[in-house]
Amino acid sequence: MLALEEARARILAALEATPAETIALAEAWNRVLARPVPARLTQPPADVSAMDGYALRGADGSEGARLAVIGTAPAGHPFAGAIGPGQAVRIFTGGFVPPGADAILLQEDAEEAAGQVTVKETVKPGRWIRRAGLDFAAGDTLLPAGRRLTARDIGLAAAGNNPWVTVHCRPRIGILATGDEIALPGEPIPAGGIVSSNAHALAALVRAAGGEPLILPIAPDDRDAIAAAASAARACDMLVTTGGASVGEHDLVQKALGPEGFALDFWKIAMRPGKPLIWGRLGRTPVLGLPGNPVSALVCAVQFLVPALAVMSGLPAAPPATLLVRTGAPLAENDRRFDHLRSSLGTDRDGRPVATPFPLQDSSMLATLARAEALILRPPYAPAVPEGAEVEAIPLGQFGI
Amino acid sequence: MLALEEARARILAALEATPAETIALAEAWNRVLARPVPARLTQPPADVSAMDGYALRGADGSEGARLAVIGTAPAGHPFAGAIGPGQAVRIFTGGFVPPGADAILLQEDAEEAAGQVTVKETVKPGRWIRRAGLDFAAGDTLLPAGRRLTARDIGLAAAGNNPWVTVHCRPRIGILATGDEIALPGEPIPAGGIVSSNAHALAALVRAAGGEPLILPIAPDDRDAIAAAASAARACDMLVTTGGASVGEHDLVQKALGPEGFALDFWKIAMRPGKPLIWGRLGRTPVLGLPGNPVSALVCAVQFLVPALAVMSGLPAAPPATLLVRTGAPLAENDRRFDHLRSSLGTDRDGRPVATPFPLQDSSMLATLARAEALILRPPYAPAVPEGAEVEAIPLGQFGI
Repeated sequence: MLALEEARARILAALEATPAETIALAEAWNRVLARPVPARLTQPPADVSAMDGYALRGADGSEGARLAVIGTAPAGHPFAGAIGPGQAVRIFTGGFVPPGADAILLQEDAEEAAGQVTVKETVKPGRWIRRAGLDFAAGDTLLPAGRRLTARDIGLAAAGNNPWVTVHCRPRIGILATGDEIALPGEPIPAGGIVSSNAHALAALVRAAGGEPLILPIAPDDRDAIAAAASAARACDMLVTTGGASVGEHDLVQKALGPEGFALDFWKIAMRPGKPLIWGRLGRTPVLGLPGNPVSALVCAVQFLVPALAVMSGLPAAPPATLLVRTGAPLAENDRRFDHLRSSLGTDRDGRPVATPFPLQDSSMLATLARAEALILRPPYAPAVPEGAEVEAIPLGQFGI
Repeated sequence: MLALEEARARILAALEATPAETIALAEAWNRVLARPVPARLTQPPADVSAMDGYALRGADGSEGARLAVIGTAPAGHPFAGAIGPGQAVRIFTGGFVPPGADAILLQEDAEEAAGQVTVKETVKPGRWIRRAGLDFAAGDTLLPAGRRLTARDIGLAAAGNNPWVTVHCRPRIGILATGDEIALPGEPIPAGGIVSSNAHALAALVRAAGGEPLILPIAPDDRDAIAAAASAARACDMLVTTGGASVGEHDLVQKALGPEGFALDFWKIAMRPGKPLIWGRLGRTPVLGLPGNPVSALVCAVQFLVPALAVMSGLPAAPPATLLVRTGAPLAENDRRFDHLRSSLGTDRDGRPVATPFPLQDSSMLATLARAEALILRPPYAPAVPEGAEVEAIPLGQFGI
């Protein structure tokens, strides 16, 4: 059985980022840049006032001086002339500092009456002036390629005068649930069957990780049906199957895909829940075969599919984000399989995160998984630790997973 | 000046959740339930095997026993008959345990040949059998109202046979940027003007928080234009304006909205960056007036708009999520204004989060804000602390903000 980290490394090494597309900035939130975003202008474009007040010559700004107010300079409306000796211009935050001025008299340090302003506190030349280019200069790289765009980034790209950005396409993930026994919610349930939960849970996880899910029709346990469904997925960036991956007699996925040109790199992975997992390639399309058990499928998806989506989106290869937490219960020594304890996630009295594993970790229990806000990670042969010990956990809910 | 917490409490107390809509489960990821999701069936529907092996009577499962294999019970295909003394049925994970059987002989503890199976290890009655309803029973509440749906929740709702769910509508947020000096990216920039970044940054933040942004045409600093744009926003769940909120002579938003029926509850808030903020109601529509400065607007949005979106989405009233971090630099004593230090966010050698404030905190610097992965919170009069001290911070990037 392969170690989890090695399995993930092999999967990630086989993937590449999707091609680029150019989209409107207004649609770019949470997308990953394929090209850097440049500054197409200088910000601020000229020296501007950081405060409301009066622009004047520093030499004229001693306490008690009286200056003629010769105009106004609100943001967006530069004063047309220049400031000479004994003159001042009413200025507002963001207003251009007029030629000749090199100091700002704050509004609260000024008294204006009858077209004249009296200096109540001596000014410091240069103070409260934001220099041209303080934020960025035309030609600067504002945002590098490979960055997932936040709301702040969208603001910065806009300020740099970019109506369009070039991003990686959302990875398109074909999802194929297999099994005679499954039906979609609301459909007639075959005798002895269950309602399929994997396809839609995985589709939601794909969305949460920035991909575009494509749910293929459920394929019964039948070679032809699986092969036909899978070939429909050749246009996807990855095909994810669930079910049919275990070592029993009903493991049809591998057999069904073989004649379609499937190159198998089959693994059992030393992990719990999980273990049966298929990794290979159908023509050019990578194929990830997840276990049919919904809890196993989701835990495997967190460990393999979420990082795979990141790489396909143009982000660096990395394990899922983890959090250092204290365990809310003692943990037993682990065996040779990498374990994932479904846990609640809260905080202790000092506000530090605490994850407490649920007593029953049966991998068939979806309701327990839904309540689990974190997976405590127990690497192979991890020693027993007491309650309160620091352990690593993957938070789920805060990433929408 | 009002304290930040009081301002937020007053805003949140004035809001209510949006009405409900019924949507397809496949579209429900990240939406907030307006009604609980019930279990419409029992899972598992009958006693099922947790492993691949043989179903038999516990009394027959002593080491060395040989039993007649009378059929198979894969998942989805229950064995039609019952098991009698000396009989076994080949069973697979998820297969129904046939009537008469009360024990599972694991595949690896069995040897099958010529229609007979030999027990290599004595079975324990009940072991490896998942009882009907172990996961949930018909009529159980699977997910409560007020929950934001994760990928796991979507799986659970599907398993409970729910093709539809009832959720709160996405809060619709009208965004009105005001100012003579601003243009959208790629448009001609007026003399002395800048490119508008607030509207699209706020729209992205609204999306990140689960809302639906509506960007209104930019309104020049002109009463009629602002009033007309604002009246177009009456159908929104909230109107957010930026600019025109400060105390200078160009504060048109309040004056422009007055004749439209605007009930003002004007505040200056003791915070930095921020301070000028309008809160009120235009007819039935709540109005949040943010500062025009993009950094101030975004920090105010994090403190007020993100929690407001949560309440409108049907979630509890709460401050933004924070993280305990160590400060990567000493922090000076704070004055009376609640401060938000733009900081990088990394981890120390032990994997604990460290936030390091940028040396220059000028509120005009969008590029610095974009690089800031966290806001270190400095409440009024917070004492000076040394490098390494534990402080509270709002993480931004991990929430897409």
